[in-house]
Amino acid sequence: MSTIGKVIRCRAAILWKPGVQFSIEEVEVAPPKAKEVRIKIVATGLCGSEMKMLENETSHYHYPIIMGHEAAGIVESVGEGVSTVKTGDKVITLFLPQCGECASCLNPGDNLCIQIKQSKSSLMSDGTSRFTCKGKPVYHFANTSTFSEYTVIKEISVAKIDAVAPLEKVCLVSCGFSTGYGAAINTAKVTPGSTCAVFGLGGVGLSVIIGCKAAGAARIIGVDINKDKFEKAKEVGATECINPQDFKKPIQEVLFDMTGAGVDFCFEVIGNPETVEAALASCNESHGVCVIVGLLAGVQLNISGWLFLSGRSLKGTVFGGWKSRESASKLVSDYMAKKFNLDPLITHTLNLDKISEAVELMKTGKCIRCILLP
Amino acid sequence: MSTIGKVIRCRAAILWKPGVQFSIEEVEVAPPKAKEVRIKIVATGLCGSEMKMLENETSHYHYPIIMGHEAAGIVESVGEGVSTVKTGDKVITLFLPQCGECASCLNPGDNLCIQIKQSKSSLMSDGTSRFTCKGKPVYHFANTSTFSEYTVIKEISVAKIDAVAPLEKVCLVSCGFSTGYGAAINTAKVTPGSTCAVFGLGGVGLSVIIGCKAAGAARIIGVDINKDKFEKAKEVGATECINPQDFKKPIQEVLFDMTGAGVDFCFEVIGNPETVEAALASCNESHGVCVIVGLLAGVQLNISGWLFLSGRSLKGTVFGGWKSRESASKLVSDYMAKKFNLDPLITHTLNLDKISEAVELMKTGKCIRCILLP
Repeated sequence: MSTIGKVIRCRAAILWKPGVQFSIEEVEVAPPKAKEVRIKIVATGLCGSEMKMLENETSHYHYPIIMGHEAAGIVESVGEGVSTVKTGDKVITLFLPQCGECASCLNPGDNLCIQIKQSKSSLMSDGTSRFTCKGKPVYHFANTSTFSEYTVIKEISVAKIDAVAPLEKVCLVSCGFSTGYGAAINTAKVTPGSTCAVFGLGGVGLSVIIGCKAAGAARIIGVDINKDKFEKAKEVGATECINPQDFKKPIQEVLFDMTGAGVDFCFEVIGNPETVEAALASCNESHGVCVIVGLLAGVQLNISGWLFLSGRSLKGTVFGGWKSRESASKLVSDYMAKKFNLDPLITHTLNLDKISEAVELMKTGKCIRCILLP
Repeated sequence: MSTIGKVIRCRAAILWKPGVQFSIEEVEVAPPKAKEVRIKIVATGLCGSEMKMLENETSHYHYPIIMGHEAAGIVESVGEGVSTVKTGDKVITLFLPQCGECASCLNPGDNLCIQIKQSKSSLMSDGTSRFTCKGKPVYHFANTSTFSEYTVIKEISVAKIDAVAPLEKVCLVSCGFSTGYGAAINTAKVTPGSTCAVFGLGGVGLSVIIGCKAAGAARIIGVDINKDKFEKAKEVGATECINPQDFKKPIQEVLFDMTGAGVDFCFEVIGNPETVEAALASCNESHGVCVIVGLLAGVQLNISGWLFLSGRSLKGTVFGGWKSRESASKLVSDYMAKKFNLDPLITHTLNLDKISEAVELMKTGKCIRCILLP
């Protein structure tokens, strides 16, 4: 029996208030309104930045909330005026929309669609939620809310993808992979023959390595305090890996010793102010470019002015600089064409019921990416 | 009678110790050794960064010292093995050398010649000084030491220029003009039709404006707390000027109000950590580029991590990204070809004897650039 036009009852992981564990509940998901799409989530990743946002006291979320933003699924139904996807289409969810009309969308060098600001309200455009649980409205998260069997998302936050794409893999294109890969290719613009360093070898860090390799870097140095991550980093393209705890010198001095004049490109994929300064200091004094990929939520950077004096650059990036809808579709096609491999990034797959176990795996550094199946 | 091969007795402004005034003394200038050039200084600018270095307690200068680095002059004699300049050539002095052989010099995207490190010793390559005063050796400064009638500089720190160039103007190519102009053209890569803001309207700030205009910026907003500088800023290309003290809001909010989405390029030409953060915050959230042109000597930057989250960039620059020897010659030719005008930057010309008066004019914001004639 078709669910189109009806409320769907299904399971979702709800966070009732800050600091507690996720709770699996039955929720009601209303049909999509105009320019909205209701999606059956097939696979959703658990993203480190999301967990940081949860822990960050300065973030202003509303509760109860359904989090999750890195997902792939199948369109169940579409609201009035939706023209780019239809029931049955495979799609990627996008925390960063692409409205196609704002100054950012119209600027080729820009990807920060103005509609991302909508996500701050944690509600849909009409000021209401599509979720209820135990009679209470439940807030949306990051334009997506993918820790649920079904979700409702604006059309501009959905990318149609290849009909034969494996959703339990390409869900990573929704955030982590694209962010890291694009940070190397679009933001840093890694050059052939260059030397790169990547601080933090989680799922996004490995995606940066994949991007550096694709861009033709000659040397890619992985940096992490967890040696267990080195094997995987080398599998995806790191030419060597080092643990700062193995040295008495600061890591920037170690990297200068290794490279002679510092690295050409450095990526901070941790989101820690101290490692941002160390990553910048690891760069070539004149032309070195440091990209902050890790989420610096509510923290202050404290950086010596000398580091900039000779010409270094420090850059931020959002979704790896990709324009979200058009690029997500293309990146999935590139995966299907074997231009890169997402499979090594996925170390665990669990049922959505086990979300707390997935959080623990991530916190303890035991997984790269854990995929949750609602 | 020729002075070639002989010690020259002449006047120089000596700083005997930190915190005191310059003292005009008779000094002896030894002949140039191998790969060195002795130059009769015809005109030298007084650079704001230099005064900052004087005041900065963390800078490690040796005393007594002859400072000054922004100058033009005429080659008096050359040491053994010097092949690129000869007696009588007009030249520009360069605090940033171009050896042509190091990794930086060989990298088209780089200009930080490794030989700049020589200047840290405040001595010539053989570990000795070419200056003495009252029987004591006097230290060199920034590979140049131009506050003297004669100086000795390494060949790699000298650029031969057009024989008819007016030295009392083109001495600004030696530092201030090239730094500001290049920050816009090379470091920020200002794009046609863009909106720029320039914080700090001294000689270098005005040079940034000239660069922004040359690059085709549609809107150039000058920012300074000294309104007396607005007229000159508009003369060289600012389309409007604002004084942060005229607003109750922070300047970044004023600039967002004026531009809608922040400026495309912002230049901090003050060297103050607070204004660096404000300048970065004034940039477009996604593609905005902020260039630190002001000297951040021994200070810590304290910047909110949020400012980078959406994609902004913060860049340093040295000598405006120009490869020093080849570019200084070319920039002088461009001046002669009237591609830009240096004349408005020069508001005062004094004899070197009046150097303390020049320092005072600069400190009190009463001059843009004061040229000293030894």
